[in-house]
Amino acid sequence: MSQQVKSDIEIAQAAEMMPIKELTKRLQLSEDEWEPYGHYKAKLSLSIMDRLQDKPNGKVILVTAINPTPAGEGKSTVTVGLGQALNKIGKNTIIALREPSLGPTMGIKGGAAGGGYSQVVPMEDINLHFTGDIHAITTAHNALAAMLDNHIHRGNELNIDVRRVVWKRVLDMNDRALRNVIIGLGGPLQGVPREDGFDITVASEIMAILCLSKDLEDLKKRLAKIVVAYTPEEKPVTVSDLKAEGALTLLLKDAIKPNLVQTLENTPALIHGGPFANIAHGCNSVIATKLASKLGDYVVTEAGFGADLGAEKFLDIKTRAGEIDPDVVVIVATIRALKMHGGIPKDNLKEENVEALKAGLSNLEKHVETIRQFGLPHVVAINRFIHDTEAEIETLRVWCEEQGINVELADVWANGGNGGKQLASRVVQEIEKGDKNFSHMYDVNASIREKIEAVAQKVYGAKGVEFSPQALKQIESFEKNGWGNLPICIAKTQYSLSDDPKKLGRPTDFTITVRELKPSIGAGFIVALTGNVMTMPGLPKEPAALKMDVDNKGRAIGLF
Amino acid sequence: MSQQVKSDIEIAQAAEMMPIKELTKRLQLSEDEWEPYGHYKAKLSLSIMDRLQDKPNGKVILVTAINPTPAGEGKSTVTVGLGQALNKIGKNTIIALREPSLGPTMGIKGGAAGGGYSQVVPMEDINLHFTGDIHAITTAHNALAAMLDNHIHRGNELNIDVRRVVWKRVLDMNDRALRNVIIGLGGPLQGVPREDGFDITVASEIMAILCLSKDLEDLKKRLAKIVVAYTPEEKPVTVSDLKAEGALTLLLKDAIKPNLVQTLENTPALIHGGPFANIAHGCNSVIATKLASKLGDYVVTEAGFGADLGAEKFLDIKTRAGEIDPDVVVIVATIRALKMHGGIPKDNLKEENVEALKAGLSNLEKHVETIRQFGLPHVVAINRFIHDTEAEIETLRVWCEEQGINVELADVWANGGNGGKQLASRVVQEIEKGDKNFSHMYDVNASIREKIEAVAQKVYGAKGVEFSPQALKQIESFEKNGWGNLPICIAKTQYSLSDDPKKLGRPTDFTITVRELKPSIGAGFIVALTGNVMTMPGLPKEPAALKMDVDNKGRAIGLF
Repeated sequence: MSQQVKSDIEIAQAAEMMPIKELTKRLQLSEDEWEPYGHYKAKLSLSIMDRLQDKPNGKVILVTAINPTPAGEGKSTVTVGLGQALNKIGKNTIIALREPSLGPTMGIKGGAAGGGYSQVVPMEDINLHFTGDIHAITTAHNALAAMLDNHIHRGNELNIDVRRVVWKRVLDMNDRALRNVIIGLGGPLQGVPREDGFDITVASEIMAILCLSKDLEDLKKRLAKIVVAYTPEEKPVTVSDLKAEGALTLLLKDAIKPNLVQTLENTPALIHGGPFANIAHGCNSVIATKLASKLGDYVVTEAGFGADLGAEKFLDIKTRAGEIDPDVVVIVATIRALKMHGGIPKDNLKEENVEALKAGLSNLEKHVETIRQFGLPHVVAINRFIHDTEAEIETLRVWCEEQGINVELADVWANGGNGGKQLASRVVQEIEKGDKNFSHMYDVNASIREKIEAVAQKVYGAKGVEFSPQALKQIESFEKNGWGNLPICIAKTQYSLSDDPKKLGRPTDFTITVRELKPSIGAGFIVALTGNVMTMPGLPKEPAALKMDVDNKGRAIGLF
Repeated sequence: MSQQVKSDIEIAQAAEMMPIKELTKRLQLSEDEWEPYGHYKAKLSLSIMDRLQDKPNGKVILVTAINPTPAGEGKSTVTVGLGQALNKIGKNTIIALREPSLGPTMGIKGGAAGGGYSQVVPMEDINLHFTGDIHAITTAHNALAAMLDNHIHRGNELNIDVRRVVWKRVLDMNDRALRNVIIGLGGPLQGVPREDGFDITVASEIMAILCLSKDLEDLKKRLAKIVVAYTPEEKPVTVSDLKAEGALTLLLKDAIKPNLVQTLENTPALIHGGPFANIAHGCNSVIATKLASKLGDYVVTEAGFGADLGAEKFLDIKTRAGEIDPDVVVIVATIRALKMHGGIPKDNLKEENVEALKAGLSNLEKHVETIRQFGLPHVVAINRFIHDTEAEIETLRVWCEEQGINVELADVWANGGNGGKQLASRVVQEIEKGDKNFSHMYDVNASIREKIEAVAQKVYGAKGVEFSPQALKQIESFEKNGWGNLPICIAKTQYSLSDDPKKLGRPTDFTITVRELKPSIGAGFIVALTGNVMTMPGLPKEPAALKMDVDNKGRAIGLF
């Protein structure tokens, strides 16, 4: 590897992109099946699905990971690199990713579009306003909030209890001062005072809905079902009661179309939707994933955080909404992150430490078990970092082989698709073996308690689940409201298999505490909250935004 | 006129649009000078200005109006129709308009892109998210707010007084419940509690800045100067103190590029920027107007509300920032609105009433006087409505001729460009006479009081100005801060020449009361507030949004 390491933005800005028109030609799209957004981005028409409905689906490769650590696991980088590598070995492959949220970009992250020589481009656009999808969701969400408060202000015919409004407002921004607010102050002409709060847009139920809808009609039906508030008798009030679903659908009519871009090696990538992976399901849109599986023979897609969160939700929620089961799962691990799971603090990760690595393997072991329980073939991908030693890599490789786990090194950050050819070949082999025997982790018609217990015990390795008195009361009322047969979306810390972020590795002998439940009836799942989940992040002491700027050619500075 | 009157959206959706690629060819733009946003919208590169810097500017036609009434005056419709008509008579003309705000579209307006056969298209896109400019401004504005509150939360090195924060948050939504809020509640991890509020995005100083900037560098300089708060000693704290101008410029790097669309008759239209016409200057961007004057031999552009607000600010603020003086001013009047100024209530406007019309002419008379004081040639355009009678039109025509005022009928709503040919010829004649003798209404180096008095007396016809004790104190401190030599932007009701919205016609013997001043140092003007100005509208009892939807082809329903 060269001594002069280029930054992600330097690599991205030096990329030779294929004009989007060429890319759509390679995908054999007709002129009326896409709309350009600049010369390197396009929105694709949903009519392509109708044209290709009889074409067999491509194989779906789901990329997940061990529990993330501050050391970074590079799941997006591996997803992009693997997609590039599959094309290098002659497999017609499309990548399907989530859209980055601007809030964290301005805060700590500075950008999220893969890394090194495995990035999607134009990186600047993808990290900033892109094609406006997230802005459209912000607008639709807040239009609903305004219509709700206007209804209350104008006589409140639906008898909404202002103490029981559950529809907050959103911004695509890290803004802690908006977490808890009081609105409607200033007297009788300025609305009705009540407690409220703002979430970050990607935490909006509308984001989850957009990502689980099959088409515009399904989107509208789901929007209509959103529960926004309750009456004093605790009867749910929905978007349909407010007659707002038409306007919201209109505001989202372009956002529902998937976005086509490319990687540094001109592999097509659909980037569409990006819901939270704790209070929502953490996957890109059903529409984009299905479309990618029609346009390519292989699709590489990812799910948020570790296999306990994103992959479980992909497999128990997204597959039910979208009928797109993966054919193989890639579990990303890094030597660095495994050493953290083995007890080493972040600052000491550059030193070789085979013992810590061995201690941390238990985390990987659990995630492999989970994927096996889902009945899916799998490959562990070691995402190579500069300071990984041969002894460490060999230790991980030997351990995997002893356990009968497929493992391959991925050197895609430094070498792009060429660094992932072996991983790509192994993934194709596993798909061709045809050992897939997929089943969900629970029967969707089981009780809410049973479903939560199934995930906690089988996916997290918990010995049981404790429900707060509030949660028990909510379960009863949810089942009474007819919401009992929805899948469950557990909001849990991403850092640990347990609900305690400090318990790294593979904790044992723990219980999961369900504190509260939230109905996401439009999205079609019940959220079970364990511990506090932050739905509006804050900015750090020195936000990434302070270093952002434009150069004299109008190009971005300070994204990374 | 046909008995079956089509709605605006029916006419717009039936339009045969020219592909944007063709339109850019007609404008002789090279491939790298524009980016497509869909097949019928484009963003134009600022580099075109450099290429055309030696080309003489086209003639600028400014469209303004009498004081608006609920009867409607159709200024945008006349602007679009006149642009079409100029092309019909062989004059190469470009239209430069403001972008509509989504908030009022969801509320009362239902859309704003001209009307009848004088509309800009694609009307649906223009009225919804368009090319994302307003969303980018919302994002930049709120990023600054988040950075400001983060600064306070993280130790407040700049010693910002939380009681003296003047930078509010914004949404592009009519949401009265957000006018007055308390933020930062919830304890020490959730920010610092303080009073705050939300404005609608088009009221953001960033919108005014975008519209007055010459280029990206000027934009960044202006953003840096925004005053966001004061210390307890009342020392101003700016964006530059927060080191946020780079990030804000980055967020606006595409929003600063003008948007190219077309009218129903394929006349090119640049739609870019849309600041309020009371607390801001109410005109489309300097960049778009200048670019239009390089690309066309004639530019038709409009300014918000009546000549007392939009036109005065175009002439005293926008011309100073952009060096683009109009060559002729078109003053739009309708028979209906003049009858309202003559004392007739809205419900009785369908009946012929020549006496009321005569009584209302005083309003038109004052605006003509104002334009004469600016030294500009002018033509009154009578925007024809269905119920106007021949006697009424003749009365208006004869009165104008008696006063030596140029007057023409514009039948552009029903007949498009063909209905505006006479107006177009008259406008060209007036330009060719070359009687322009433009001067500003005040010397920018006069005192703040003198400048306000000049506008109140010469433009509004007031006998004087009363300043509140607070306003007097602010004037002193603003002049001490070095802000004394900026133009003035008076925020006043649009319905009356006075500061009392009930005084229609041409009120006499009144004074204007200046209650408060606000520095818009980035935009480069001082706002003088007379009475209460609503910077966050509310939704009506039955918002237009309730009727909005998509049809089974994904097209908009309920915009009008």
